[in-house]
Amino acid sequence: MARWDPGTEGRLVRAALDLFTECGYDDVTVTHIAERAGITRRSYFRYFPDKREVLFAGSDRLPPALADAVLAADRTAAPLPAVLDAYAQVGNRLVEIIDHAAERRAVIDASPELQERERTKLAALTDAASEALRERGVERDHAKLIAQIATIAFQNAFEQWLDACGERNFASCLQAVTDSLRGAFPA
Amino acid sequence: MARWDPGTEGRLVRAALDLFTECGYDDVTVTHIAERAGITRRSYFRYFPDKREVLFAGSDRLPPALADAVLAADRTAAPLPAVLDAYAQVGNRLVEIIDHAAERRAVIDASPELQERERTKLAALTDAASEALRERGVERDHAKLIAQIATIAFQNAFEQWLDACGERNFASCLQAVTDSLRGAFPA
Repeated sequence: MARWDPGTEGRLVRAALDLFTECGYDDVTVTHIAERAGITRRSYFRYFPDKREVLFAGSDRLPPALADAVLAADRTAAPLPAVLDAYAQVGNRLVEIIDHAAERRAVIDASPELQERERTKLAALTDAASEALRERGVERDHAKLIAQIATIAFQNAFEQWLDACGERNFASCLQAVTDSLRGAFPA
Repeated sequence: MARWDPGTEGRLVRAALDLFTECGYDDVTVTHIAERAGITRRSYFRYFPDKREVLFAGSDRLPPALADAVLAADRTAAPLPAVLDAYAQVGNRLVEIIDHAAERRAVIDASPELQERERTKLAALTDAASEALRERGVERDHAKLIAQIATIAFQNAFEQWLDACGERNFASCLQAVTDSLRGAFPA
């Protein structure tokens, strides 16, 4: 048997979402998820290190993709536009490949534990953007601040995209959030 | 013996900081902290629900204080200035009463577990500010976005204040961060 199989990973994600939705996150165990997907508990841990992580499959690929996009930005781009543009690229790809986004959102919103993990994932994106800005010569504190703001914009844009049931493109959601932010600062 | 005593709480915080600094957060147990502070492990849990929380003593008072300050803002104040002004008030009080802030920062920066808890605390502040804005009639998505941005500004201002070793007042640090953010958005 192959040690890792994308079909199995997808079945685990689907099984976890179904079980979390039916029974609530807290009452579901890794064993339940594994059984529903037709594998053993032990095999589950080849795919994910814990129960939370199944809802963040593939998320480890986002920070390096974001960093690459920030580093590829035009040399003359200011820090915030560079990171926002990188997030637009990452978000455009993300919304093409993400499955079950609305169900996943509902499950996370119902669990403080999952929200904690989500914040950790967003912090990893912030760190990646911040590091990339530093490589572009931006001073440390400013790089961190800009990366944090851009991550907030990304997160809110993603929620707008979800609320629109995929009928708006991601970049336009991010632009709307950015405009809203710019307008929030009194002149 | 009294069930709760502020002197004991302070000794626990001091003991925890010393032990985390000497041995590293991961290698210290609740029993170690309790013993160093001269109480039993069982008594520790009268003060804090787990090992992390000892570094966030008193933090539960911040979200309601922030919400009160947002609600007390002038009716004509725009959302972001209202929350930033509330954070200036909360931050001014916080820096007066906080002990061992730099040591605490170093311990948190060295532990992903503590960083996770800190993000949860910051999320509670964001939620409090967002709820208060909604009570002021601000639409839900915008309230959340503004509260998140203001919390980032607060967090960065606090770090600037720490870096200045308390030689700048908190409100001026927050103003500097706000100016930096405003300038980050291209016109």
